[in-house]
Amino acid sequence: MPRADAMQLDCAFRYRRYGHFLERFMKRILIIGIGAGDPDYLTMQAVKALNQADVFFVMDKGEAKAKLVALRLEIIERYVTARDYRIVEATSPERGPDNGNYLNAVETLNRDKQQVFERLIADELADGECGAFLVWGDPSLYDSTIRIVEAIAQGGQHAFDYEVISGISSVQALAAKHRVALNAIGRPVAITNGRGIAEGFPSNADSVVVMLDAQNAYRRVEHEDVDIYWGAYVGTEDEILVAGKLADVAGEIERVRAEARARHGWIMDTYLLKRRGK
Amino acid sequence: MPRADAMQLDCAFRYRRYGHFLERFMKRILIIGIGAGDPDYLTMQAVKALNQADVFFVMDKGEAKAKLVALRLEIIERYVTARDYRIVEATSPERGPDNGNYLNAVETLNRDKQQVFERLIADELADGECGAFLVWGDPSLYDSTIRIVEAIAQGGQHAFDYEVISGISSVQALAAKHRVALNAIGRPVAITNGRGIAEGFPSNADSVVVMLDAQNAYRRVEHEDVDIYWGAYVGTEDEILVAGKLADVAGEIERVRAEARARHGWIMDTYLLKRRGK
Repeated sequence: MPRADAMQLDCAFRYRRYGHFLERFMKRILIIGIGAGDPDYLTMQAVKALNQADVFFVMDKGEAKAKLVALRLEIIERYVTARDYRIVEATSPERGPDNGNYLNAVETLNRDKQQVFERLIADELADGECGAFLVWGDPSLYDSTIRIVEAIAQGGQHAFDYEVISGISSVQALAAKHRVALNAIGRPVAITNGRGIAEGFPSNADSVVVMLDAQNAYRRVEHEDVDIYWGAYVGTEDEILVAGKLADVAGEIERVRAEARARHGWIMDTYLLKRRGK
Repeated sequence: MPRADAMQLDCAFRYRRYGHFLERFMKRILIIGIGAGDPDYLTMQAVKALNQADVFFVMDKGEAKAKLVALRLEIIERYVTARDYRIVEATSPERGPDNGNYLNAVETLNRDKQQVFERLIADELADGECGAFLVWGDPSLYDSTIRIVEAIAQGGQHAFDYEVISGISSVQALAAKHRVALNAIGRPVAITNGRGIAEGFPSNADSVVVMLDAQNAYRRVEHEDVDIYWGAYVGTEDEILVAGKLADVAGEIERVRAEARARHGWIMDTYLLKRRGK
């Protein structure tokens, strides 16, 4: 064997050994978007990621969200076929009273969550193991998991690598079920929350998606020429859809929403507001 | 057998016969989001939908988009295992010069596309068959397929039912690859195009996603305290990612973008602009 080939072989061998070394000692975190309700919303990428996990961290958010925890467990059971895994449940901290400062309250909550996540990564994940957080919808939209895991990584106390896997958000599921495009032709879309829309329909948008609106803030929008596409528990067996001219259906949505919330003990709804074209 | 039971059985039988009748004579259209590049972005729902199609309509958009057509064919080959299918290729009409009126140009284009789609549904799809349009990314975001199919359905010339299946959009793929949340805590996100951002950073948003920007419009944004997360061909083997303070990396992005566009003959890029928190 010529010397150069032997060297290449040696390099390859050492590289493999080094890769093996890394794999044995580095923790890995996967932040996996599981979509907004229907287990069929999982992507092939998410299914492959689920099958790499040694540990699933399932955050319990109290009785009202028990159904969401059950759905996560169902997804793990359905899709993980390749290997053994552990499930570690942890209680997710609750947001305290915001005393008029929402940002402060959320930042405090995220610091509390970060402590819980750090403990999970330190105590429940061995070196070389892979741990997964399953995120409802898409991890990049109104979810704090990326922010918290990045803060831990920046902190430098724990050596790990992490990856984010996209999921179908409730926004997309809503649009698909209503068979409606989010944007008007060539026009922007705003995504906001109940607080945002309570300030009024953004002047520079004609399509607004509203998530996390606990206060029926759509009632505060000028009704003229606005259509609403509303959905609750979209993608699940409890799905409810209502669409129409906002002025015509706002009352119906408020009634249906209150009933559903009382019946289930919680509600997860999203809506799209679209100004009609001129 | 009591008479009531016999009647129920008869109703069930007739219902089954009627359902069968519908199934035999009704055309079905599936608008399937296939995600933004990586075949692993397909959802389980999309895979199931692909396996219901008798016909795939593949729109050819000229040489530059040949790679996108090839990716569609790869997805069909990879995932359709359950049945025989036909592929019908059609030439997608091109947008004419817009003479300063973008909306008019797109509406004319969509009418042309509608004629092509109507011909496909009328001539290439037998009664009772299922036809599928494969949409890059998510059908609800900057794509005209839902709008066109809905217009045909409203027209009433063709009897068919249709369904929309969500896909991972390039916006989500971009955020996942950069491991960044789209929104700041509790704050809105704007999704716009090159024309939108050329008018300036929206005053009521601190996170803006820009799609379909052919003009490097990020250069017109005030640079101070804005970070950019840019990606081209995200999710494909040609993926390029650049992130940093806009003022520091705008020049690099412009250069990398021009090189990539020249090398591939086309480019598909997306970016997220985020104002830094105070």
